[in-house]
This record gives sequence, structure tokens and C-alpha cells, in this order.
Amino acid sequence: MKTNDKRREKPGEKKPNPLGITVKKADDMPEWYGQVVTKAELADYAPVKGCMIIRPHGYALWQSIMDYFNRRLDEHHVKNAYFPLFIPESFFEKEAEHAKGFSPEVAWVQNKDEGSQERLAIRPTSETIMYDAYARWIRSWRDLPLRINQWCNIVRWEVSDVKLFLRSREFLWQEGHCVYETEEECDREVRIFLDEYTGLCEHLLALPVIAGRKTEKEKFAGAKYTTTIEAFMPDGKALQCGTSHNLGQGFAKTFGISYVGKDEKEHHPWQNSWGISTRLIGATILMHGDDKGMVMPPAVAHTQGVIVPIYRDKDKEEVLAQAKKLSASLKGFSIVLDDREGFSPGWKFNEWELKGIPVRIELGPRDIEKRSCVLVRRDTGEKKDVSWKTLNESFSTLLDAIQRSLFEKAKKHLEESIRKVTSYTQLKKAIGERRLVLAPFCGAISCEEKIKEDTGGATARCIPFDQPALGDHQCVACGKKAKHWAYFSKNY
Amino acid sequence: MKTNDKRREKPGEKKPNPLGITVKKADDMPEWYGQVVTKAELADYAPVKGCMIIRPHGYALWQSIMDYFNRRLDEHHVKNAYFPLFIPESFFEKEAEHAKGFSPEVAWVQNKDEGSQERLAIRPTSETIMYDAYARWIRSWRDLPLRINQWCNIVRWEVSDVKLFLRSREFLWQEGHCVYETEEECDREVRIFLDEYTGLCEHLLALPVIAGRKTEKEKFAGAKYTTTIEAFMPDGKALQCGTSHNLGQGFAKTFGISYVGKDEKEHHPWQNSWGISTRLIGATILMHGDDKGMVMPPAVAHTQGVIVPIYRDKDKEEVLAQAKKLSASLKGFSIVLDDREGFSPGWKFNEWELKGIPVRIELGPRDIEKRSCVLVRRDTGEKKDVSWKTLNESFSTLLDAIQRSLFEKAKKHLEESIRKVTSYTQLKKAIGERRLVLAPFCGAISCEEKIKEDTGGATARCIPFDQPALGDHQCVACGKKAKHWAYFSKNY
Repeated sequence: MKTNDKRREKPGEKKPNPLGITVKKADDMPEWYGQVVTKAELADYAPVKGCMIIRPHGYALWQSIMDYFNRRLDEHHVKNAYFPLFIPESFFEKEAEHAKGFSPEVAWVQNKDEGSQERLAIRPTSETIMYDAYARWIRSWRDLPLRINQWCNIVRWEVSDVKLFLRSREFLWQEGHCVYETEEECDREVRIFLDEYTGLCEHLLALPVIAGRKTEKEKFAGAKYTTTIEAFMPDGKALQCGTSHNLGQGFAKTFGISYVGKDEKEHHPWQNSWGISTRLIGATILMHGDDKGMVMPPAVAHTQGVIVPIYRDKDKEEVLAQAKKLSASLKGFSIVLDDREGFSPGWKFNEWELKGIPVRIELGPRDIEKRSCVLVRRDTGEKKDVSWKTLNESFSTLLDAIQRSLFEKAKKHLEESIRKVTSYTQLKKAIGERRLVLAPFCGAISCEEKIKEDTGGATARCIPFDQPALGDHQCVACGKKAKHWAYFSKNY
Repeated sequence: MKTNDKRREKPGEKKPNPLGITVKKADDMPEWYGQVVTKAELADYAPVKGCMIIRPHGYALWQSIMDYFNRRLDEHHVKNAYFPLFIPESFFEKEAEHAKGFSPEVAWVQNKDEGSQERLAIRPTSETIMYDAYARWIRSWRDLPLRINQWCNIVRWEVSDVKLFLRSREFLWQEGHCVYETEEECDREVRIFLDEYTGLCEHLLALPVIAGRKTEKEKFAGAKYTTTIEAFMPDGKALQCGTSHNLGQGFAKTFGISYVGKDEKEHHPWQNSWGISTRLIGATILMHGDDKGMVMPPAVAHTQGVIVPIYRDKDKEEVLAQAKKLSASLKGFSIVLDDREGFSPGWKFNEWELKGIPVRIELGPRDIEKRSCVLVRRDTGEKKDVSWKTLNESFSTLLDAIQRSLFEKAKKHLEESIRKVTSYTQLKKAIGERRLVLAPFCGAISCEEKIKEDTGGATARCIPFDQPALGDHQCVACGKKAKHWAYFSKNY
């Protein structure tokens, strides 16, 4: 039987802390994460195995990411488009490595058309369907570079256990697919888009990342090489935040993309592709959330401040009127005035903290007497009296401070997590201590497999662009001459 | 063998008019439409039967529609979210009429999970998957109204012949799904969202529409009633541009959505749903396009003006420099400076006309002497010398004039197409003349079926909100007392 105060008892929640998170982040991060995501109403489990529902509070983060990135795409002359969800099976088979890489993950829809036996894949990525069109559209050097992006849903079936935002059968992403005349141009823009991802992670999500190249084992199926940015979560696991691939000329040859150059001869162009997904939201939650719930970086928050009026019956009218004025005066910021009836200020404080709104603005009768209000930082809990006169400036300064502080804290965590090792014993020990391990590596797939087995799952995260001097170090796994330093760790 | 000038010979195009449309709109509208969509690079056919590729030039229109409508949604406190693509078969079966209405159209994916035999639908609409979640989320009157929207792809398999944007197996849309305490609130907002669609069509797309209620035969499967806006195309066919349904309490009862009211008793809420899709782009092309190609209403155009510099070698530097200055001076507008090499001005004129950019700005040495430029309207071809000094103001005025003129022309067409009839003979004649026929109607499904059969396909488009006096008119089909005036016509 439902009762009238069910609003305070969200389904599945435990008493006596009806709204809050019941485990500490440090004690049980997977349980903590699941509670934050569902209780802060960022996402929910769907009745379809492996799928998720992105709730409005979570979708708003994705909208911020889309808005930010669309502006960046515009700067780089990338245009948005939309390609079909369904991809004929024969398209996948054309590029052998690509087909091999994706085949276990593909969901198939039975083609009901009479006379057609070909199965249709539900896109796990769109290279093949897009490049078939590119082959028809591209004729001359005048058509290049061609830079197209799409925002869409993606399906990869082989998910055993769903982790909301981080691992699910369906997720949202963007995939950019560009075509160039020369290898140099292609290389240059592979890096440009990777750097844009770094900018997005660092400036919008306050997530510091390490940029580098993927090893042969970890590169994208069908790519010449893959570049990546990797963040490092508080539980000692890396999280791949975005990848940018140089596809070489392989797909162009397979799909018959060619252009007539200025030399009047026919050439195959060079291609890259690059993507980020809704898992970035998961990374943001994992990195910044705390025992009270979500912590939104102000730059990505759809609501930057919430005004909670505090009053007794006799003050109500005055306090609400003044709260409205304050809300209106905070121009250029996204502010919610929480004037809901039937909820105590304390209950509201808890809810907005759980949801991670960067700043709470408290306004009560005593504040009005002083013509001030109280700003409370979500990340530190720090309170500050602020005069109405300087509210706009103080609020803006505070948002900047929170954004910077979240980034710096995460950066410190990243730096302190790195262990540079030169022996296999050191590597195994550091992995056991949940570090991000930088080790000399020969590049062999067999060495990666050995490391993964001996450490209970650590993988090569990347060969960082920023390489320390290698000297004559030997590969930690096989003892042969190392080719570069590479990062190893467990990962999401 | 490809040659270097393939850029001018788009695949599948006929000479001697390599870029342009080879049929007149008035002569063969289906062929004309297909040519405009593909040659203006708005969309393309996909290698998957029934599917389309929305190319950047077309997707930009969808982006404008999304941007506009997201702002409107915000005003109405509607939040965006994202629900799964896959819907368990059992969900569909729960609401009998809904299941019956959609079952022929559903594409199924085989559920590969061991131990599960349930098929998964690829969403043809999301009522069922969303309301299953709503049942978990809604507890108290405090949770209402709940207003959620999603932008997503939709799959409806039973498409025999694809018409790009207008009819395809996969398309993009938005679907709003709201829940209210009372019937009155639900009714009111069914109309609010329909009115928003009217606003979008009329102000953004310059498409005049008629608003009304669908007949019993044409209403949404599972709805209490459906409201609609209908545009009327130049070939004498109506095009449904948006619908808003009052779902009553049927889905709430089926999916177990209930809330505890202020009276502390449990109630089923009222629900509505409403949607528009990428077919609005098709409507815009059909309505405004002409024998030269697409005509974009300025309000929805991602590029409002294109500057085409005209020069000989000796003037080149000066003209290009001045063109850049003009481009920069047109602040607040979206302007493209077409400084591509290797294309003649005439070629550029044709291309931008084909693509429907509202205003062309020509700048040559003689214009520079006069410190002016030439503005050319896409819709009328009218040219006007404009001084640099007043360019911003003239450009802005011109955009407004084009937007208004497109709307007025379409409105005139709509008004002139309407035929008010009171007999079956008149109705059949008017349908034969491709009119939008307003006739007294009893509401019976059998009468609609009779009309459809006797006219070779005319359907009831809507019972307009704006009802002339009915008097004692009889239903044109059966002769019984009419209940209201209804519009009939053929349709897309």
C-alpha cells in the first residue's frame, strides 16, 4: 500500500536514510556508484537486460557535452549527419579485421523482406555504412577533406553485467568520420580530434587524462593505429574516455573510395574516425562523486545553483519574494529556485547535494536583514555569507573555484597513482596496489597477454605521447629491448 | 574511369544540366521531389531497403528544429531523457489497441540471451517502455506533472517504397510523454503541445497548418483522442505535421501507474504523448521548393546568406579582401563566403540556388567602386543594390520579407485549396480536383471507409477546431445527421 510520504521513500531505498547513499565511496565503490546513479536519478535499469534509461538529470549532462562538442566541431568544419541504424551483413564482412573485431558484439535483426536472406546488423559502429556512401559521394580532390559526424545510439550485445553509463548493450555516442587527400593531413587531424576530447574532459568535466597511442593488441579493429585518452578512477582502474583512429587506406580500398587528384590521377584517400560516448558521464560520477552523492563540475552542470528559501509561516511571503529577486538577478547562470511546498529545507539540502548541484544558496529572514545570503559549495561543504550586491561576482568566482578545485584534486590523484617501474616484480606489485603503472614495453601482443594473466586483468592502457627517456631498458615482460614506455592498469 | 571534372557531374545526373533539376515541379512532383532531395544533398538512399541517409545539408534543418523546440520544451518544463531502443514483446501486448495498431510495423531482434525466448521490438514508439519506468518512478502527487521528452530514431518496418524524409523504415523524431493528476490538465497540455507544433511549423518552417482532432478511425492506437496539425502540399495532398494524443488513463491502468493524491487515496493519472519527425523536412521541401531546387525559409536555414565574389585575376585580391570584410560585418547572421577556387561564379550561383540558401550576396569590382553589393532573393530571384553602410539592416529586412512571403504564399495556397461541400457528388468532384474538402460528417468509421474507396484514397484529415456552423447538414456519405465538419483529402 502506498502512503502519502512515498515521495521521501524512493523505491528500493533503505531507512533511516531514505534519500542518501548508504555506503561510503571508499568502502564499496561499485555499490556506491550504483546507488549514486539511481538515487540521484541520473539513470535507471531498464526491463531489457543490459540496457539503461538515461533520466533527465543524467541526460542534461549529455546535452551539455553535445552542445560543447558541436561548437568545437563547427570550428573544425565538421558537419553533423545521420546514417541508418541497420547495416547489411555483407558490409561488415568486407573489411576482415573490422568484421572479426565486431562480430561477437553484433545484434541482428531478421530481414523480413521477401527474397532477401541477408541479415541486418544493428550498428555497433558506422564505418561500413558510412564509407559505402562516401564511395558514391567522393569524386575529386575538391570534395576533400570530407568531415562528417553523427550523434546516435549504438548497440553492442555482448554485455554480461550492465553498469549504468559505463557498460550497457545500448549507449549514445558521437562518431566522426573524415576523409583526406594525404596521410599527413589525416595524422594531423587524428590528433586534433583527440586533443579536442582532452579539452572536453579537462575543461568541461574536470577530468585529467593521459593521451597516447593504443598498443597493437588494443587498437581499433581495422585501424592503422588508435590514439586514446585515459582517465584514472579513484578505485585504481583506468577509464578510456575517447579514441581517435587513423584508418589508413584500408577501408577506402575495401569500399572503393577514390578521388581524382590535382594530378588528374585516381587515388585512395586517408581516413580517420573518432568517438566519445555516454560513458563519460560515468567517468564524471566516479571521479567527483562523494559519500553524499553526485558532484557536478559547474561547467557541465545544467543547474549551477539552487536557491533554498528558509522561512516560518510569518516570513514566507517576504522570503519567497526576495528569493525570486535573487534568482532573477543571477543573470547568465542556470539557477533553480526550489519553492516546493511540503519539503523541509533540510530535505531539500539533502536532495540537491545528492544530485550534485555545485552551489546551494540559502536565504532566510536573518539573511534578509543583513541583505545577504549563504553560498554553500557542494564539493567542500564550505559556507560563505555573500552580500546581495556582490552576489553575481561571488557566484561566478565560486563556480570557477569549484571547477578548478575538482580538476586539481583529480589531477593530484592521477599523478599520485602513477608508478614508474622497470621490473616485472615491481609491475605486479604496483598493479596489486591499484596503480597506473608506467613500464618499458616491447610492444608484443604475447607480452600484453602475459601481463594480463599474471596480474589478474591489467591491460596496456596506452603508449603515452609524453615519453620519458627510454635508455636501454628492457621490456618488463620478456626482457627483450623495450620500444617505449607504456601504461598498464586494470580498467573499466 | 573518373575524370577531373566529376565534381560538376554528380553521380546519376543528366547532362546538359549537370547540377540542376531536370523536371518541373508542376509537371512531375514525385520525380521533382526526389531530384531536389538528392541533388541538393539533403538526403540520400541507403543500401538498406527503406532506409535513408540524412546528409549534412538536411541534418542542419533537423538541428534547427531541435534547437528551436528544445527552447520551447524548456518553457513548458519538459525535460529530455533517453529510453532503450529495445522493447520486450510482452510490453506491447499489454495495451491491446496499441499492440494491434503497431504489430504489422514492428521489426524484431532475436534475443540471444540464454533462457530467454522473448522477442525484442525495435521501438516503433516508446509509450510502453517509458510507462513501465513511470510506474516505478511515480508515487505521490508531488511527482506530478511529469513531463519527459526524447529525441531518438524510430523503426517502422512496413514501408513499401521509401520517400526520403516522408516515408522510410527508420526516421528521427521527438516524442513527449507527460503524466498529470487531472483530465483537465492533461487536455489543456495536449493542446499546448499541439499549439507549439503549429508555432514551429508556421514561424520556423513557414508552413501554415490546420489544427483539429483526428476521427475515431485515424486516432493513435491506444489514445482517448488524437489532435493533429495538417499542412496541404502543392500537389493536393495533405501532410500530417505533428500529433498530440490524450491517452486517457488506459496506459496508466495497464502499466500500473498510480499516485497517492492530496486526499491520501490512490489514483491513476492522465497521460498524453505528442511527436514530430524528420518528415517536417519533407514538408518544407515540398511546400517551398521550386524548379531550381530547394528554398529554405530563413528562420530554419543554417546558412542564411552566401557571398559569391566575382573577379578577374587582376581584381581577385581586392574583391576577396572586401568579401571577407562584408562577411565579418554581417554579425548575428550565418554567412558562408564561397571563395572556392576552380568554380565559376555562375556555377556557384546554381549550386546555392539548388541548395536553397535564402540570400545570395554578389560582390564584384564594380560593386566595390560603388561601395555596395547585390542581394539576390532565392525565392523570387529579385535583385537589389545595397550599400555596405546599410547592409546589416537590409539583410535582416530581406530575411524577414522572405520568411513572411513564403508563409503568405503557402497560406494563400492552403486557403485556395479548401472546398466546402455538402453533398457526396461535390465531395468526389473536389477530391478529384485535388482539393482539401470540408464536409459535414457523422463520424462513423464505415463512412470514412466508403469515402476512401469511392475517391481512390481520400481520408479524413481532421475535424478542425475551427468549426463553421453545422446547421442541420447531413453526413455527405450516409445522409444521417452530421456531427461536425471534417476535412478530407488524399495524403502523404
